[in-house]
Amino acid sequence: MPLVNIQLRHGTTPAYRRAIADSVHAAMMEVLGIAADDRFEVVNEHAPENLIHDPMFLDVPRSDRSVFLQLFLNRRSGDQKQRLFATIVERLARDPGLAPEDIFIGIVEVDAENWWAFARPTTASAI
Amino acid sequence: MPLVNIQLRHGTTPAYRRAIADSVHAAMMEVLGIAADDRFEVVNEHAPENLIHDPMFLDVPRSDRSVFLQLFLNRRSGDQKQRLFATIVERLARDPGLAPEDIFIGIVEVDAENWWAFARPTTASAI
Amino acid sequence: MPLVNIQLRHGTTPAYRRAIADSVHAAMMEVLGIAADDRFEVVNEHAPENLIHDPMFLDVPRSDRSVFLQLFLNRRSGDQKQRLFATIVERLARDPGLAPEDIFIGIVEVDAENWWAFARPTTASAI
Repeated sequence: MPLVNIQLRHGTTPAYRRAIADSVHAAMMEVLGIAADDRFEVVNEHAPENLIHDPMFLDVPRSDRSVFLQLFLNRRSGDQKQRLFATIVERLARDPGLAPEDIFIGIVEVDAENWWAFARPTTASAI
Repeated sequence: MPLVNIQLRHGTTPAYRRAIADSVHAAMMEVLGIAADDRFEVVNEHAPENLIHDPMFLDVPRSDRSVFLQLFLNRRSGDQKQRLFATIVERLARDPGLAPEDIFIGIVEVDAENWWAFARPTTASAI
Repeated sequence: MPLVNIQLRHGTTPAYRRAIADSVHAAMMEVLGIAADDRFEVVNEHAPENLIHDPMFLDVPRSDRSVFLQLFLNRRSGDQKQRLFATIVERLARDPGLAPEDIFIGIVEVDAENWWAFARPTTASAI
């Protein structure tokens, strides 16, 4: 039962935002074995001045199409997290066509017992 | 000093949203011994397409009244977290009348030293 | 690669909100050694009824200028976190002139491997 926060600037279409959400969820299914229906994502749209980043972090130019992703997940290995990052970036490049330098991802890991959704008060599996 | 994020769709009344916040806080007071005035809650209202979940997760139909709750808390036992989930769901069913299948909860636990509010730079107790 | 969430009520100017973001980032540079360009901050503006706190938490009057800060960081010592709190409050008092009782801060710590930004898939340093 992961929770995904997607933050980006105002001015995109619902289809564009949906493509981001779909690509992130598909990457979590592929790398972490998350179920197709185990999907909880929130898209937050911001005024340009409210989404703040340096336009040249690590000497790489970053555009105003920047997307900040925050993933709340059960604990994973370092290797799984690296593969998740790579797969998210790869899928977002395909759809909706986001440049890697415009993607910022942070993971927050929690215990499997920290989720509740009707009919599954605790998660038996580590997924 | 917990922090609660409440996410739901646009189109509800302030009284409805307040009832959600009140019920969640009352459950935290009851189960975790949180003080009445130790209350920090943020309600985020979203366009329907920006709050994404599967309408049939775990084969249970879920409506567009879905509410995602995210609780940032000091560490608790598994038992306390289970009782907290049950009490939140029970209170939200009473007021504002939310169906259990429309509630999704995630907890993120932190150290007691990770909070700051004026007059209490560090929390002596684990509450 | 920290991520900062800033939550406050509607009705402020872009310059006021920018001053908050600048002061928080400057405090993180000063106390934690974060790089100037390692900056990812999101400002969320809320209707008054959606930013809920007790007006008298710990018997201190708190105004409707309240700001909730949430910092997602790599792990730090308790001492560093205390100095970070003090420095943020001190800088926000100077610019934009926030009263300490109107500031609420919560930190969520994660592993250094939990961040991804183009050109730095993993953070070698603990910064």
